[in-house]
This record gives sequence, structure tokens and C-alpha cells, in this order.
Amino acid sequence: MAVKIAVLPGDGIGKEIVDEALKVLEVLNRNFGLDATWEEAAIGGAGYDEAGDPYPEATQRLVKACDAVLLGAVGGPKWEPLAKPLRPEAGLLRIREDLGLFANYRPAKVHDQLLNASTLKPEVISGVDILVVRELVSGIYFGQPRGIEELPNGEKRGFNTLAYKTSEIERIARKAFEAARLRSNRVCSIDKANVLEATEYWREVVTALHAAEYSDVELSHMYVDNAAMQLIRNPKQFDVIVTTNMFGDILSDEASMLTGSIGMLPSASIGEEFAMYEPIHGSAPDIAGQDKANPLATILSAAMMLRFSLNRPDLADKVEQAVENTLNNGVRTVDLADGGASVSCSGMGDAVCKEL
Amino acid sequence: MAVKIAVLPGDGIGKEIVDEALKVLEVLNRNFGLDATWEEAAIGGAGYDEAGDPYPEATQRLVKACDAVLLGAVGGPKWEPLAKPLRPEAGLLRIREDLGLFANYRPAKVHDQLLNASTLKPEVISGVDILVVRELVSGIYFGQPRGIEELPNGEKRGFNTLAYKTSEIERIARKAFEAARLRSNRVCSIDKANVLEATEYWREVVTALHAAEYSDVELSHMYVDNAAMQLIRNPKQFDVIVTTNMFGDILSDEASMLTGSIGMLPSASIGEEFAMYEPIHGSAPDIAGQDKANPLATILSAAMMLRFSLNRPDLADKVEQAVENTLNNGVRTVDLADGGASVSCSGMGDAVCKEL
Ligand SMILES: CC(C)[C@H](C(=O)O)[C@@H](O)C(=O)O
Ligand SMILES: CC(C)[C@H](C(=O)O)[C@@H](O)C(=O)O
Repeated sequence: MAVKIAVLPGDGIGKEIVDEALKVLEVLNRNFGLDATWEEAAIGGAGYDEAGDPYPEATQRLVKACDAVLLGAVGGPKWEPLAKPLRPEAGLLRIREDLGLFANYRPAKVHDQLLNASTLKPEVISGVDILVVRELVSGIYFGQPRGIEELPNGEKRGFNTLAYKTSEIERIARKAFEAARLRSNRVCSIDKANVLEATEYWREVVTALHAAEYSDVELSHMYVDNAAMQLIRNPKQFDVIVTTNMFGDILSDEASMLTGSIGMLPSASIGEEFAMYEPIHGSAPDIAGQDKANPLATILSAAMMLRFSLNRPDLADKVEQAVENTLNNGVRTVDLADGGASVSCSGMGDAVCKEL
Repeated sequence: MAVKIAVLPGDGIGKEIVDEALKVLEVLNRNFGLDATWEEAAIGGAGYDEAGDPYPEATQRLVKACDAVLLGAVGGPKWEPLAKPLRPEAGLLRIREDLGLFANYRPAKVHDQLLNASTLKPEVISGVDILVVRELVSGIYFGQPRGIEELPNGEKRGFNTLAYKTSEIERIARKAFEAARLRSNRVCSIDKANVLEATEYWREVVTALHAAEYSDVELSHMYVDNAAMQLIRNPKQFDVIVTTNMFGDILSDEASMLTGSIGMLPSASIGEEFAMYEPIHGSAPDIAGQDKANPLATILSAAMMLRFSLNRPDLADKVEQAVENTLNNGVRTVDLADGGASVSCSGMGDAVCKEL
């Protein structure tokens, strides 16, 4: 089946890491019956440079005409002086909203070959395999009213609204329960129900949905402050974590850092109609253009795309296995090399292709 | 100078840990010219049991008539079925608001004797000494409007308001800059200015205040998701962290867990007129009444009280030194003993008194 991918390299190292993922897809096209084509478009700072908009109209049209989106990374100091709606991050928030990508899957999985890369003790993180399911298009990121206003007494006041309604909570909780069924069957829902009504209601809806439709899955609840501690104290206790947009932003980054190899972690953002795949790391402007970046998170994001959007779980397995083999062979980019020998970004891409 | 302390043991292990701190104060009364008296009152679940209110009127009167408040801990499963305004946490939030305790100081300091208690590698945390200055009476914890409402379409919606105005940001930033001047002179302000207007304005005000009055202090800004990572990747980079109520709740708990010995960490909550001191750990209902709890966080909270409210920094130093000596002598409560020999809660209190 012919499939089409919208490729949005973005900024910084975005171009070089995406190119390596495309190399992998080319091998799959050539040797394993994948029938994928792709077209590139600009997003983030690149979108601003090209069209004065971090999410240009041409990009909006392209992504809606494709079966999946593969994104590199956005952002960089060059665009920081811009007004907020023109900055790269605004493009990212808008594409999420525009495509209705309400479920953000962020696995934090420890690769045994890279155990020592973590600042945590190996025995604490060995075997850690957490999937954070973050709500991505509601909550305080998108709540109205918001703004900065003048007060009668001459002061100013910045304000935002955290809000969740029934259907928004149900649809993300559903994704978490369904993901858990394919893993260790445990969901931990994280909130601050003891203080915030929005998350008190979150807990209520998750609990009711669980009782009605997912009672075969083990459900627990945890306060966000405790979760921030438990991730460090005993990360192995978690299987699937489901949480709000803001808490998910914080906790998924915390969880990723436990693994010590953020250059390895892919993500998927999925809605009713569209899906986008991207590494969780940033655009690393300091090493952009030097062929030093680690492309594995992007290659593993492409694997997630094969599994969830392109209906080729067999090829997803192949890519993931090729990455494992490459690591087993001792091939390392500089971020993983711990001072030892390392290969370039394209060298790593080539090594994975060879394993395929 | 005669001083009077309001003692609020609270729930769970609250009573036993507070008793050990009072033992220490008795030694200071007897041998070092402290002239302190105290009176106990109920808060949290104990307040509900005694007066049907987690922050009873008698307690409100007492704390306002004293020079400082020493609190144990609140909460427990017994009170979880209660309506939210009757739960122990509600009492805690109300006393903070009632006393205007806007600045919450949460040190996360690694004791070299306890290096191995952490799940992080010793070389990563040795020497870590972070002070989180958390805003405590504004932000999303107290913002209006808030609630759970019915929508026209039959759904419900939970909502809260995150808001900060100029004066609220200035007064907490001021405390952070002043604390930094007595330490390593560095402040990192943590926000999500790229997404939330409330914290965009936070950053603006902190930056302006810094330029106007504290340019001798080194100021940096960091996004909260990155901060959650950096605390794990390289905690030594931080001196003073200043942040909002919600982010401070999460990050201070994360920072405390780095040390591996949350039973050691004191805190202070300070306003224009009043101040409250408490361990950062909870009420540990599972071990309550067994004389097993670690009283050191409460004893160190009493030391903070001596320094900041009772004008006896000399005695604060003495207590802190006595705790160090006790640890150097190898005395450990069970949470610190790593399976080795341990003393009881009262045994630890006695050991510190002996060192005095
Ligand atoms: C860049 C920023 C707007 C974004 C977010 O906060 O969602 C990023 O941190 C992420 O997690 O993808
Ligand atoms: C118990 C709870 C309301 C409280 C808070 O969130 O402030 C606690 O977590 C804390 O940090 O003191």
C-alpha cells in the first residue's frame, strides 16, 4: 500500500537526524516492500524564515494530505527575540492543536547497553520501561481566558486557565488503558486532586471509566509531587503513566533523564485522524550542522510511525532490532560514548541500515 | 528574651518527631540561655477530630499570639473520605494563607555521611546544596475562579486559575535574591514562559527587579521541564531556585529525593509577620506511634526557627553541628540505616541532645 509521509525537519540538528531516518525508510522501501514516499515542509524557525510563520500554510496543507508526519526538532536562539506567536514553539503548539493530536506517547526505556549513561545507579534503572501518556491539546496550555492585564491599582497580572472536561479526560484515559493492555497492564494516573479541582475531576473521570470499561487493568493514582519523587526513588514501579499536558511535560522529561540517554527516546502524538512522530530531545543548535547528533531517537520515532500509522508493525520490529544490534556492536554517537570512540550522525544511520 | 512557640504536632508521626525537637529546645533552655515556652494546638486530621475543623479557631488564635510555629505533619487515610474542605491538607493550605506565609524555603542538602542513601551516583550528588524558594500563597493553588461545573451539553468541566501579579512576584523574587547573597550568589528562576503568560510575566518581573536592585546576584532562567531534567543530570549547577507554588511543589520534592534522605530535610514558610517551620516529609501513618520515625528534619526545622524567627543564629549553628556530630558518630534511624543497626526516634533525639 502506497503511503505518504510529511517530513518536517525543523531547526538545528533537525535536518541531519531526519535524513538518517529517511535513509532507513529507503532501505525498507528497497528491500522490505515498504511503499513510502515523502515530501518536506518547513516548521518552527525554518517556517518563520521561509514564510514568516512557524506553521506555514503550505505545511498545514501538506500534513493534512499525508498518512503521517515525521518531525525533527524546533527552536534556537536565532528566533528567541521574536514575538511569542512567531517563535518556533508556537508552530509546534499549533500543529498539535490543528491536527488534534491529543495523545502524546513518551516511552522512557532503559537500553541495557547504556545503563551507565544515567546519573542513577544501574540497579535502580535496569529494566525501567515507562510509557508516559500525556494529554497534549487541552489543559493549561490551551485554556481560556489567558493573558497579561493591567490592574486598577497600576500593577499587572499574568493569568492562565487550567481546564479539563469529561470527554477530554475520557479519550486520553482510554488511550492509556489500551496501551497498558499491550504492556504490563498497569496505569498510574497522576494529578494534584488534593488541591486542584481540574485534576480532582480528572481523577473522578479516570476512576469511573476504569470501573465501566477497563477494570481488567490495574489502576492507581498518585499526586504529582509524589510522582516526581517516586520516579527517582523507584522508577521500576511504573508501567503506563497518564497525566495532564503540563504535568506530562515535566514528568516525561524527568523520566527521560533517568535513562541517561535522551538521544535514544522517540515519541508519538496521535489524534482521531492524524499522527506525528518526533524525538523527544530538542534542536541542539550548539551542535547543528556538525554531523555529531544522535539520530537514533528519530529512527525509533520512524519505527513508531511504521507501527501506529503505516500499518507495518513487522518493519517497526525490524528497525528496533537493528538499533539494538547496532548498540550491541558497540557503535556509539558522541553523546553515548562516555569519552570513548564514536561515530558521526550519518555513521550511525549507516550502521543501522547495515543491520537491516 | 522570652519567646513563645506554637507547636502543632498534627497527625501520624507528627507527635513523636515534634517531641524530639522540643527535647532539643529544652536543652537549649536549660544550658544555653534560650528562654522559650510553647503551647500545643491541633491541626489537620487532629484538628478535625478535636473541633470538626482542620484549622480550628483555637489554633488560629494561638499561632497569631506566638513568635513562631513548629509543625509536625498532617494527613492520613482516616480522613481521606471527608469532603475536601475538611481534609487535613485544607488545614495546611488555610494556615499558610491566614498567616501570609508567601515564601517557602526548602533546602535540599546532601549530608556526606549519607551519600549512599541516594539512588543517584555519589559523584553526582556529593556537595549538592540547593535552596528551593517556592511561592506559597498565590498561583494556581489559590487562583479564582475555580471549581467543577456542568456544561450545556451535559459534560462537566473542572477548572482552576493560575495567576501572578507584580507585587506577588516581586516579594518572592526578593527573598530568593537575598537568600542567594548569603550563599553562592546564584538564582535560577524557573517558569514555563514559552507557553504560560502567567509565567512569562513572572520572568519579566524577576528580570526587572534583578536589574534594578540585585544585579550583583547571578540570575538565570530555565523552563520547568528542563529543570526537572537538569536536577537529575547535574544538580550541582543549582544554588537558589525560585519558582511558582505548583512548580515549587514538584521540583522541591524532586530535589529532596536526590539527597536520598528526605527524613533529614527541614523547611521554613515565612511571611511579613509570621513564620512556620516543618519537616518536608509527610505524616507516615504506616509507622506512626512506633517510635521509628526520623526526627532530624524536625530538629533541623527547629534550628531554622532559631535562626530566622527567634534571633538565635548561634543556637541554630549549635543544633546543626550536633546533628552533624550525631551522624558522624554513626547514629542512624531505620530510614538511614540501609539495613544496619538503628536507633529509635527518641533514641535519635537523645543522641542529638547529648551532642549539645
Ligand atoms: C517547546 C514546548 C512548547 C514543548 C511543550 O512544552 O510541550 C516541549 O517542551 C515539549 O515537551 O514538546
Ligand atoms: C499537602 C499538600 C497540599 C502540600 C502542597 O501541595 O503544598 C504538600 O504537598 C506540600 O508540598 O507541602
